[in-house]
Amino acid sequence: MQTSYTLGVDFGTNSVRAIVAGCADGRLLGTSVFEYPSGDRGVLLDARDPHLARQNPADYIAGLRASIAGALADADRQPGFSRERVIGIGVDTTGSTPLPVDARARPLALDAAWAGNLAAQAWLWKDHSSAAEAAEITALARAHAPEYLAPIGGTYSSEWFWSKIWRCLRVAPDVFDAAASWVEFADFVPAVLSGVDDSRQIVRSICAAGHKGMYSETWGGLPSKAFLARLDPRMAGLRDRLFDNAWPAGRPAGRLSTEWAGTLGLTPGIAIAMGALDAHYGAVGSGIRTGTLVKIIGTSTCDCAIAPAANTIADIPGICGIVNGSIIPGYYGLEAGQSAVGDLLKWWVEEVCEGDDGLHARLSAEAARMAPGESGLVALDWNNGNRTVLVDARLTGLVLGQTLRTTRAEIYRALIEATAFGARAIVERICDYGVPVDRVVCCGGIAEKNDLFMQIYADVIGQPMLIAGSPQAPALGAALSAAVTAGSAAGGYDDWTEAQDRMTAVEQKRFTPDPRAQAVYNDLYAIYRELHDGFGGVPGSAPVFGSLMKRLLAIREQAAAARS
Amino acid sequence: MQTSYTLGVDFGTNSVRAIVAGCADGRLLGTSVFEYPSGDRGVLLDARDPHLARQNPADYIAGLRASIAGALADADRQPGFSRERVIGIGVDTTGSTPLPVDARARPLALDAAWAGNLAAQAWLWKDHSSAAEAAEITALARAHAPEYLAPIGGTYSSEWFWSKIWRCLRVAPDVFDAAASWVEFADFVPAVLSGVDDSRQIVRSICAAGHKGMYSETWGGLPSKAFLARLDPRMAGLRDRLFDNAWPAGRPAGRLSTEWAGTLGLTPGIAIAMGALDAHYGAVGSGIRTGTLVKIIGTSTCDCAIAPAANTIADIPGICGIVNGSIIPGYYGLEAGQSAVGDLLKWWVEEVCEGDDGLHARLSAEAARMAPGESGLVALDWNNGNRTVLVDARLTGLVLGQTLRTTRAEIYRALIEATAFGARAIVERICDYGVPVDRVVCCGGIAEKNDLFMQIYADVIGQPMLIAGSPQAPALGAALSAAVTAGSAAGGYDDWTEAQDRMTAVEQKRFTPDPRAQAVYNDLYAIYRELHDGFGGVPGSAPVFGSLMKRLLAIREQAAAARS
Repeated sequence: MQTSYTLGVDFGTNSVRAIVAGCADGRLLGTSVFEYPSGDRGVLLDARDPHLARQNPADYIAGLRASIAGALADADRQPGFSRERVIGIGVDTTGSTPLPVDARARPLALDAAWAGNLAAQAWLWKDHSSAAEAAEITALARAHAPEYLAPIGGTYSSEWFWSKIWRCLRVAPDVFDAAASWVEFADFVPAVLSGVDDSRQIVRSICAAGHKGMYSETWGGLPSKAFLARLDPRMAGLRDRLFDNAWPAGRPAGRLSTEWAGTLGLTPGIAIAMGALDAHYGAVGSGIRTGTLVKIIGTSTCDCAIAPAANTIADIPGICGIVNGSIIPGYYGLEAGQSAVGDLLKWWVEEVCEGDDGLHARLSAEAARMAPGESGLVALDWNNGNRTVLVDARLTGLVLGQTLRTTRAEIYRALIEATAFGARAIVERICDYGVPVDRVVCCGGIAEKNDLFMQIYADVIGQPMLIAGSPQAPALGAALSAAVTAGSAAGGYDDWTEAQDRMTAVEQKRFTPDPRAQAVYNDLYAIYRELHDGFGGVPGSAPVFGSLMKRLLAIREQAAAARS
Repeated sequence: MQTSYTLGVDFGTNSVRAIVAGCADGRLLGTSVFEYPSGDRGVLLDARDPHLARQNPADYIAGLRASIAGALADADRQPGFSRERVIGIGVDTTGSTPLPVDARARPLALDAAWAGNLAAQAWLWKDHSSAAEAAEITALARAHAPEYLAPIGGTYSSEWFWSKIWRCLRVAPDVFDAAASWVEFADFVPAVLSGVDDSRQIVRSICAAGHKGMYSETWGGLPSKAFLARLDPRMAGLRDRLFDNAWPAGRPAGRLSTEWAGTLGLTPGIAIAMGALDAHYGAVGSGIRTGTLVKIIGTSTCDCAIAPAANTIADIPGICGIVNGSIIPGYYGLEAGQSAVGDLLKWWVEEVCEGDDGLHARLSAEAARMAPGESGLVALDWNNGNRTVLVDARLTGLVLGQTLRTTRAEIYRALIEATAFGARAIVERICDYGVPVDRVVCCGGIAEKNDLFMQIYADVIGQPMLIAGSPQAPALGAALSAAVTAGSAAGGYDDWTEAQDRMTAVEQKRFTPDPRAQAVYNDLYAIYRELHDGFGGVPGSAPVFGSLMKRLLAIREQAAAARS
C-alpha cells in the first residue's frame, strides 16, 4: 500500500494548529500554528461585561488557510511526501461556540453591516454572559421536558448553544433576526472547506449537537418547537432554519471544494471529515477504547469514555453528556470534566503567591518531597464550581487542616491532590454505572511535564496513568477521522479500531500506583468525599464533620511516623 | 498629698520591662527594657524536641535588677521625682512558668550542679513537651475529680503547672528529687525582692495557682494527695513541699529586702505586691471593671472579665478559668483566649506569602478597601487549635469560598474576620452565663496600629472597641497593684476602683460598630458558627453544610450590589 496522508486541524482558544499525519503510522510530517490576530489573543472582550468572550470568524478562515499551508510546506520537506497523497482533512474546534450565518452560510460578522457588532461574532465556549438564560432553560426543561436534561447531567450550561442564541435574541434582536441560521464552529469549518453556500446544506455533527444542543434521536432531533416557544416564540421560529439531522464521525461532512483545493495545492474532492469538539477528537487521537478513560488536561479538564451502543446505557447522574456516536460511531460517547485543574494551580501560584513559572517548578519540587498525608491538608477543587459529578457552578473552594507551619508548597500539593480526588469521583461514578475504566490516558502539557501530578493521580485513582503518544492528540484524532472518512479504498481505513491501533500510541513512560501511597489516599479520599457530599449538598449525605480535622491529624502523624 | 510612685515590672517571653508610674495619675516617669541574654532571644531550645521551651532563671534576676535600675535612672531625670517616694513594686510574668527551687528558695538552675540541665530551668509557658501528661491529668480528673476541671473549662493544659512537674519527674527524676519545691515565675520574683530564703515562705498568688495549678478553696487548696498519687506517689509527696494557701492581689507578697533596697537605691520595707500573670495585670492596667472585657492581643490573645464575687457564678463551659480574686479582690476573674491572632496573620504573610512587615501594610490597605462579605470567604481561626470555647488543641484551620480570582489580600481579611468571629464566640459565651460585656478594651501592638482590625472587631462583636491608654498595660497594672498594696497611708490607694479611675485611661480613639457592616457580619457569623460547631464537634450541632457555599455567594453578591 502506497503511503497516504491526512490533515488534522485543531482550532483552540488562542490559535489554530494544522498537522500532516501519515495514515500508516500516525507519524507527524508537518505542523504549523497560526495565532488569531483579533482582540486579546484572539478573544474579543467587552469592558462592560467580564463574562463576554467572542471571536472574529475571519480569524478562523485566515487561520484555516495559513495553518494548512504551513503544515503542508513543512511536510513538503519530508522525503517521499506528496500533496497528491493527502486523502482527507479533519477538523476539531472549541465548543459550544455557535456563530450566526446568513442564508449563504457566510458568517454575519464578515458582512460590513455587522462587523462591529459583538453579538454577530462567534460566541466563544467560555462566554458566560448567558447565565440567566441557561438557568431559565434548565428550569423550563425540568418542568416541561426533563428528558432533555437526563443525558446532559441534569443542568443546561451557559456555555452552550441555546443559552447563547437566546441571549442574542434578548440583547441584540437585530442580529438574531438577521441570522438565517446558527452553526457550531466545529460544523462551520468543514462547511467552509466543502464550499457550502446555503445555510441549509451545512452538515451538522452529532458531537456538538448531542452534547451542547439538546439534540437526540430519542425525541426526534432538536428540542420541540413547543418547548422552544416557552423560551420565546422567535426561538421556535428559528428551529425551522437550523437542521433536522446530525451525524456521527465517519460520514463525510463534504468534499474539498475546487477553490480551497486550488488555494492549498490539494486534490479537489478529497474527504472532509465531520467536525468535532476538540476533546472528542483528542480522545480519538489518544487511543480511546472500551476501558480507557482519556483525560484532556488543561486549565480545566475534559474526560471522555466510550461504551458499546449495542448495550443500552443508563443516564449517569452528573455526567455532562452521553451521546450515541459522538466520539466513535457505534459507541456512546461520555463526556465529563473538572472546571479547574491547571487553573487551580495557576491561581495559587500567580494570584496568591504572586509567582511565575519558576515558582511552579519550585513548589512542585518541594511538594514532591512530601509523603501523602504529611501536610495534614485536604482541599476541594471547586474554585470554578464543579462540572462533574455535582454539575453546580455555584460551588467554591475549601482548604482544610492548616496549622501555623503550613507552607505554600503544602497547599500547592493539596490542590493537586484535590483535583485528583475530583478525577477519582468521576471515574467511580462512571464505573458505578457499568462503564469500566482500567487505564487512564492523559494528554496536555501538565501530563507531559509534571511527574508529581501524574504520580498523585495514579496513587489516588488506583489505575495506571499513561500519556498520549502525540502532544497534538486532538489534531491527530481529526486526521485519523479523515483517514476513516476517506476509507481504505482511498488509502485510509474502514475500521476505527484498526486506525487507532496504527495511528495512535502512548508514551513509554507510565505511572503506576504505589500501594502505600494508595492506602493513605484512600483515607484522605474518604474525607474528601464527606466534604464533597456535605458541601455539595448531595441529598441523603450525613457527614460527620466533627471528626474530620482529627482524622486528618491522625493521617498526618501516621505519615510522619512512616517517614522516620 | 505629696506625689508618690510605684514600679511595675513586666516579664515577657523575650525581655522584661520596668516602668515608674505616678500614683496620682498613672503617668509614666521612666521605663527600661532588658533582653534576656540566654538561648534564642531568652528561650532555651532542644533540637531533639521542638515542643521544649525553657528559660534561665539567672536572666530573670539580672533582668529584674537591670530593668528597675534603668527605669529609675530614667525617672531620676523627671522634675520632682524622688526615689524616696517610691512606695511599692509590682510584678507580672508569663505563666504558667514553674521552676524548681531548693530549700532556700533558690532556683536549682543557679546551682552549678544543675546549671546545664534543661529540666532544672524555668519551664516556659509555651513549653508543650508535657502533652501526654496533660492528657492523662485530664482523663484522671474526669474519672476521679471532675470538680477540678469545671472552673478551667474542662481540660487541663500541657502549658500548666502539674503537667510540667510530672513531665520533669518522668524525664529527669534527679531534678524532681533535688527540688525542694516548685514556684511559679509570678511568685518567684516577689520572693526574690522580699529576700525570702526558705522555700516554704514563698507567698503564692491565687492568680497563677487558681488558673494553672488546680487550686481552689472549694476543695481545700491544691489537688488532694489521693488524686496526685494517681499520677505518681512522688507527686503526692511533693504536695507537702508546695503550699497550703494562695492569696489575691492587695495583700503584700513581702517587703523589699535591705539587700535589694541597697542595690536599687530604694527604701527598705516598701510593699511588694502579689505577683500575677501578665494578662491579669494587663487587665487591671487597662481599667477592667464589671461590663468591660479586656483583650490582650498579641501572637495569641488573653481575654479577661470580672464578676462580683458576692454573686455565685456558674461554671462556664469552655472558659479556661474562673477564679475568685485572681484579677481584683472581691471579684471572680474570668480568663479566656484565642490560640492564634497575630500569629495567624503572621503565618499568612510570612509563611504563605513569604512577605514582611511591608506586605502586612500592603495587605491591610487592600483589605481596608473591601466591603464586608465582598470576598465570599469565611475562615476558621484554628491554625493553632481553639483555646476558648472549644478547648481543643487538635483543631486546625479552614478557608472556605475561594474562586479563581480570590486574592491574598482577601484571604488576609478573611483571617482577621475569623479571629473577630472567634472573639465574638467568647463574648457571647460569657454573656450567656450572666457576665455582661458592654465595651471591649484592647491592648497590644495590633490594637494600637491596625485600624482595620479594630473596626472589623467592632462590626463583628457589635460593641465599641477601645484601646488601653497605656501601651504598657501589664506593667501599669503591676504598678497599680503595688499602689493598692502600699495603701493610702503610704501614698497609694485602699480601693481598686479608685486606683483604676486615677491611674488608667483609654485612648480617645474608639471604634464603633457600623450598622450596615454589622448586618453583613451577622450573616457571616451564622456561617462561622455552623462551621465552628460542626467541625468543632459540638454535641447536638446539626449543621447543614450543603447550603453554606451558596449563602456565602449570596452575601458576596449583595455586598457587590450594595457597593455599586
